[in-house]
Amino acid sequence: MAGNSFGNLFKITTFGESHGGSVGVVVDGCPPGLELSEADIQPDLDRRKPGQSKIATPRKEQDEISILSGVFEGRTTGTPILLLAKNKDMRSEDYNKLKGVYRPSHADFTYQAKYGLRDWRGSGRASARETLARVAAGAIAKKFLKEKEGIEILAYVSKVGELSADVDLTSLTLEKIEQNILRCPNEKKAVEMIALIEEVRDQGDSIGGVVGGLIRKCPVGLGEPVFNKLSADLGHAMLGINAVKGFEIGSGFNGTKLRGSQHNDEFYIKDDKIRTKTNNSGGVLGGISSGEDIYFNVAFKPVSTIMKNQKTVNTNFEEVELKAEGRHDPCVVPRAVPIVEAMAAIVLIDHYLMRNGYL
Amino acid sequence: MAGNSFGNLFKITTFGESHGGSVGVVVDGCPPGLELSEADIQPDLDRRKPGQSKIATPRKEQDEISILSGVFEGRTTGTPILLLAKNKDMRSEDYNKLKGVYRPSHADFTYQAKYGLRDWRGSGRASARETLARVAAGAIAKKFLKEKEGIEILAYVSKVGELSADVDLTSLTLEKIEQNILRCPNEKKAVEMIALIEEVRDQGDSIGGVVGGLIRKCPVGLGEPVFNKLSADLGHAMLGINAVKGFEIGSGFNGTKLRGSQHNDEFYIKDDKIRTKTNNSGGVLGGISSGEDIYFNVAFKPVSTIMKNQKTVNTNFEEVELKAEGRHDPCVVPRAVPIVEAMAAIVLIDHYLMRNGYL
Amino acid sequence: MAGNSFGNLFKITTFGESHGGSVGVVVDGCPPGLELSEADIQPDLDRRKPGQSKIATPRKEQDEISILSGVFEGRTTGTPILLLAKNKDMRSEDYNKLKGVYRPSHADFTYQAKYGLRDWRGSGRASARETLARVAAGAIAKKFLKEKEGIEILAYVSKVGELSADVDLTSLTLEKIEQNILRCPNEKKAVEMIALIEEVRDQGDSIGGVVGGLIRKCPVGLGEPVFNKLSADLGHAMLGINAVKGFEIGSGFNGTKLRGSQHNDEFYIKDDKIRTKTNNSGGVLGGISSGEDIYFNVAFKPVSTIMKNQKTVNTNFEEVELKAEGRHDPCVVPRAVPIVEAMAAIVLIDHYLMRNGYL
Amino acid sequence: MAGNSFGNLFKITTFGESHGGSVGVVVDGCPPGLELSEADIQPDLDRRKPGQSKIATPRKEQDEISILSGVFEGRTTGTPILLLAKNKDMRSEDYNKLKGVYRPSHADFTYQAKYGLRDWRGSGRASARETLARVAAGAIAKKFLKEKEGIEILAYVSKVGELSADVDLTSLTLEKIEQNILRCPNEKKAVEMIALIEEVRDQGDSIGGVVGGLIRKCPVGLGEPVFNKLSADLGHAMLGINAVKGFEIGSGFNGTKLRGSQHNDEFYIKDDKIRTKTNNSGGVLGGISSGEDIYFNVAFKPVSTIMKNQKTVNTNFEEVELKAEGRHDPCVVPRAVPIVEAMAAIVLIDHYLMRNGYL
Repeated sequence: MAGNSFGNLFKITTFGESHGGSVGVVVDGCPPGLELSEADIQPDLDRRKPGQSKIATPRKEQDEISILSGVFEGRTTGTPILLLAKNKDMRSEDYNKLKGVYRPSHADFTYQAKYGLRDWRGSGRASARETLARVAAGAIAKKFLKEKEGIEILAYVSKVGELSADVDLTSLTLEKIEQNILRCPNEKKAVEMIALIEEVRDQGDSIGGVVGGLIRKCPVGLGEPVFNKLSADLGHAMLGINAVKGFEIGSGFNGTKLRGSQHNDEFYIKDDKIRTKTNNSGGVLGGISSGEDIYFNVAFKPVSTIMKNQKTVNTNFEEVELKAEGRHDPCVVPRAVPIVEAMAAIVLIDHYLMRNGYL
Repeated sequence: MAGNSFGNLFKITTFGESHGGSVGVVVDGCPPGLELSEADIQPDLDRRKPGQSKIATPRKEQDEISILSGVFEGRTTGTPILLLAKNKDMRSEDYNKLKGVYRPSHADFTYQAKYGLRDWRGSGRASARETLARVAAGAIAKKFLKEKEGIEILAYVSKVGELSADVDLTSLTLEKIEQNILRCPNEKKAVEMIALIEEVRDQGDSIGGVVGGLIRKCPVGLGEPVFNKLSADLGHAMLGINAVKGFEIGSGFNGTKLRGSQHNDEFYIKDDKIRTKTNNSGGVLGGISSGEDIYFNVAFKPVSTIMKNQKTVNTNFEEVELKAEGRHDPCVVPRAVPIVEAMAAIVLIDHYLMRNGYL
Repeated sequence: MAGNSFGNLFKITTFGESHGGSVGVVVDGCPPGLELSEADIQPDLDRRKPGQSKIATPRKEQDEISILSGVFEGRTTGTPILLLAKNKDMRSEDYNKLKGVYRPSHADFTYQAKYGLRDWRGSGRASARETLARVAAGAIAKKFLKEKEGIEILAYVSKVGELSADVDLTSLTLEKIEQNILRCPNEKKAVEMIALIEEVRDQGDSIGGVVGGLIRKCPVGLGEPVFNKLSADLGHAMLGINAVKGFEIGSGFNGTKLRGSQHNDEFYIKDDKIRTKTNNSGGVLGGISSGEDIYFNVAFKPVSTIMKNQKTVNTNFEEVELKAEGRHDPCVVPRAVPIVEAMAAIVLIDHYLMRNGYL
Repeated sequence: MAGNSFGNLFKITTFGESHGGSVGVVVDGCPPGLELSEADIQPDLDRRKPGQSKIATPRKEQDEISILSGVFEGRTTGTPILLLAKNKDMRSEDYNKLKGVYRPSHADFTYQAKYGLRDWRGSGRASARETLARVAAGAIAKKFLKEKEGIEILAYVSKVGELSADVDLTSLTLEKIEQNILRCPNEKKAVEMIALIEEVRDQGDSIGGVVGGLIRKCPVGLGEPVFNKLSADLGHAMLGINAVKGFEIGSGFNGTKLRGSQHNDEFYIKDDKIRTKTNNSGGVLGGISSGEDIYFNVAFKPVSTIMKNQKTVNTNFEEVELKAEGRHDPCVVPRAVPIVEAMAAIVLIDHYLMRNGYL
């Protein structure tokens, strides 16, 4: 329970700080025989990496991943897989001035209070840089699920600030998501959202947003009542991502406004399968996948690092002013898309293995 | 990972079905020396039990709890505590007609698909009756946290359907919550909400709602980054409750609409402590408690059991009409209040013990 | 990690004290569809219960087990199974004199030191009465493994004090084991051993012994390197049984005296399977089952309760004399046989489910 | 449960194969504030490494460890610590001939059967090279326990083949253990044992042995009944080490020969503490540390790699002769000493943190 592992049968353990030697993950429980090389992982890392577009932080990090164990002659062996990325763009002198100050809405203060010391370079362990490890591990899970069962996992930007994009989940594809730098499949709305982010960025400010997730072709029967409902484990996974403040599945918070007669999903028979006409449940009934699409939303707060002066307290217990800081993401959601996919894949493979074993 | 345990150091394992012999929980890891008797637990169970008011299901269940191990001469011994409630009002013949049919938005279909058989009496294991076990275990956790650290845990109804109650968290008390049968501390709005629920009930329908949670006087430093953030574990716990479709902490989904400069919580010094002026973070920074109030919302869908005919499919793979069913809750939120409190307490004590040990 | 659960996918959580209300276990993760009633469990409990023969403690306990959840219409449902035995023969007044004294080699002192209080009636939680819960859970595991894979799990007495019985594992059967009250399949040696135990009993003393375990028809491939080797998990399980001080698998401690050329098990082909000519490995290679018989030994110390005066310390921190105590087992091994079987079955089913899933 | 993690609050996850890119470990849950550098770890690795003496394998591996995360300005931060050793002496061509053959009493066959493929270079994941990760993690645990509580953990060679050394535990020191290449504190017997190992080595054979373990100044109260008894967790840890076939604590297997009146450890008062006159219990009562010395034995089988021709089966399902192989340890026990120490330390710190928390 020390907090750096997630999953049971497909268990990831991440390590590394923003400016330490390296960031990475051990994946324990990957089924043997899966073809795997760095080329299967790097594309998702590139979707997460800083500096990828004008609406991302200008920091440059290569996030180049190496597989250092668990793969032999191009296939997983069933033994633990170490994925490692060396830290390179380490201008930690940038952070010297942050050594003694608690940045508002960052984890500086709570880490110091909890651990009695902290790595103050670039948020240390609390840095979103840690999420590259999740993306790397998730790429393996996605590949396995896709090849073994045809399960498809997608995420996309649905909201930025007050702007909301209508997205048709039935026609959603990776291509539509990747067609713009925002990863919003509604091209027209994406233009507005990008403009908003640029405006916010130019003001030295940041803004929040929502990432939607979609899982297609999930077999019926995944999820372990009563505490490891598929919905609960997905929520756990998403709420563990940096800056996430909310999670909803299916009808979510809006569904609370409905009557049962509106919300209930009627069963019927289609193509010799039991299906539901609507899908307010979001593909999960009683915590178990129903075979319908699983869809959910993840709320990201505005990035705490902004280019504005802020009042705060320092480690000497004095009230001080924090000067406008350096490089930051004006809006985290485009880079969060592969993280959401990764965590969804990790939850799913864990439940899949629970049901199917490793044979 | 079989799904019926929650927590690590304070671990609960629940068991029992709606109409089997009994429902209960083993609490493993309760610190020794806590004064404990059934009288500490029963009041919360009474807040959860059916039949308690005109807006709850008319089913009568006593939910009388017995402590069968782990307590000696009125004190916990550090050994596992078995809490057991015998099932009494078992009119399982009521459910005979449900044997062969998958009720819309219930777990009948997914349980059957997953396990190959199911206890069809009153939803079996998927019944909300199981939550009495959580409430019983949570009562122990609440008592420990209150006595040991003065930590206060409250939940209340904030929304029913489209109706939303303004609630002042700073003045919230258990008395204000319990002053009406809805458990909404806004007395005026509660009247409206109760009227709405009665209207819905009279139509044979149900309606969703939102339960708010509040944790006061939580010490700084609880929560285990990066996957067992306090916020993530709370979300996991809440999303494991029957009928829950969403969870948000602090500013939640609304916070995504804000700019960083609006959302960031400035640190300042008050009464010789580092505090924040605002609390959009909801008392958790980087997954670790900051000492500010922790507050969150939990979305409950409308109850799936309604007194209306519905189309569905039966176990013979035929499309059929399900006749209006028997007793049900028109809105689950008032009875969900103690469940939310219980799960919050169980999350908190687990993190507390992680940090403080059992000495 | 609170210590009262064992296993991962087939997880048991035991509860109860010697003289509290009841003793039992929640079994979480039993595959659905297994035919199960109390009649499948009671026979093993009867093999464990006190008072069953002249060489067991004269205490009478019925150990009558009830299934209170998880079974519907005679089959397991995949939900947690509560097995409960009420405590009956509770002459706790017998133990009043033990309230203030630490019995030598019992857990009184360490429980008091660890928890700050203890249930002093009949050893409380440290009583071997808790093992009835393990036997009950193990009976389910044994039944599943037997029916699903034909796996056979046997245990037997091989040593009492200095006396050692030659046992031919290839011809071992439950009938041979149960043919005498000692559960030693070497009938001639059993007579000597029983005589020794009677002699020891008449002297008011106790004596140690060894229980052997045998697992037949275990499929190749169970065991999770590197820390959950099948051998390591078996050892963990056995060393968690009361009074156990040692565990060895295959050649064990004697094997340390051999040369590699003597100890290595040559592979050859027999009946179209890869087999080994010898089996010094005890059916486990690199922590994974090889398909050969798994066999092991478990060392039980002499029972600490004896009918002799002993020097000790009381809870007032005074050196005192403990008078000869009441009813006890002169030798625990015959009653330990079903406990060893049970724990072996629980280890095995856990690894089996890990590999095969629940489908 | 995927098998490559050990511990709960101080959790290690090892990775790496004999000839892959690297071997190492993530340590999650190390308390913050501990001074730590590679210099604290390397000495124990040097005690484990091959090529260190004439009785060890002549293979040369540097086993140079790097700390790549979790340490900042010379202190642990409470975040995961990655310890990594690059593989260097990789003459994997040596192993080409082993690609298609199952070496007797090695894990080749069971890995192939379990995973469907295997890294055949130098035993792959089943190689004892993995244990360097345990030694590295254990060095951290040992340092913490020593600095925080003065707990001392020692291991030593007590038996080689039929030769057995009398060892006085009360006067045992690291210096006495390290005074010879065998790590046997009985200098006279060590000479004989070394001669025996040389003889065995010259015959191209190997021989087994026993490593003793000793824990001094363990506080009273560590261990979690009923399944995580300190003795059971120690056994679990030791039986997970390569080549281990047995574990005993306190009087162990010999204790089974005694009467209760001989075996029981009388309590008395010494220096204002409750102590026992004898210590057959081995420092653990009811699974909880009693404050007396904890001592135990670990049985290592003879190394399976020998310089003699052996009959076996190949991956084409043919009976073949395996020619005498290359470099090997004639007796593993001297190099196993630091592994036993490491695993003991990891068990102990886990229980220590459970009781004391991280504050």
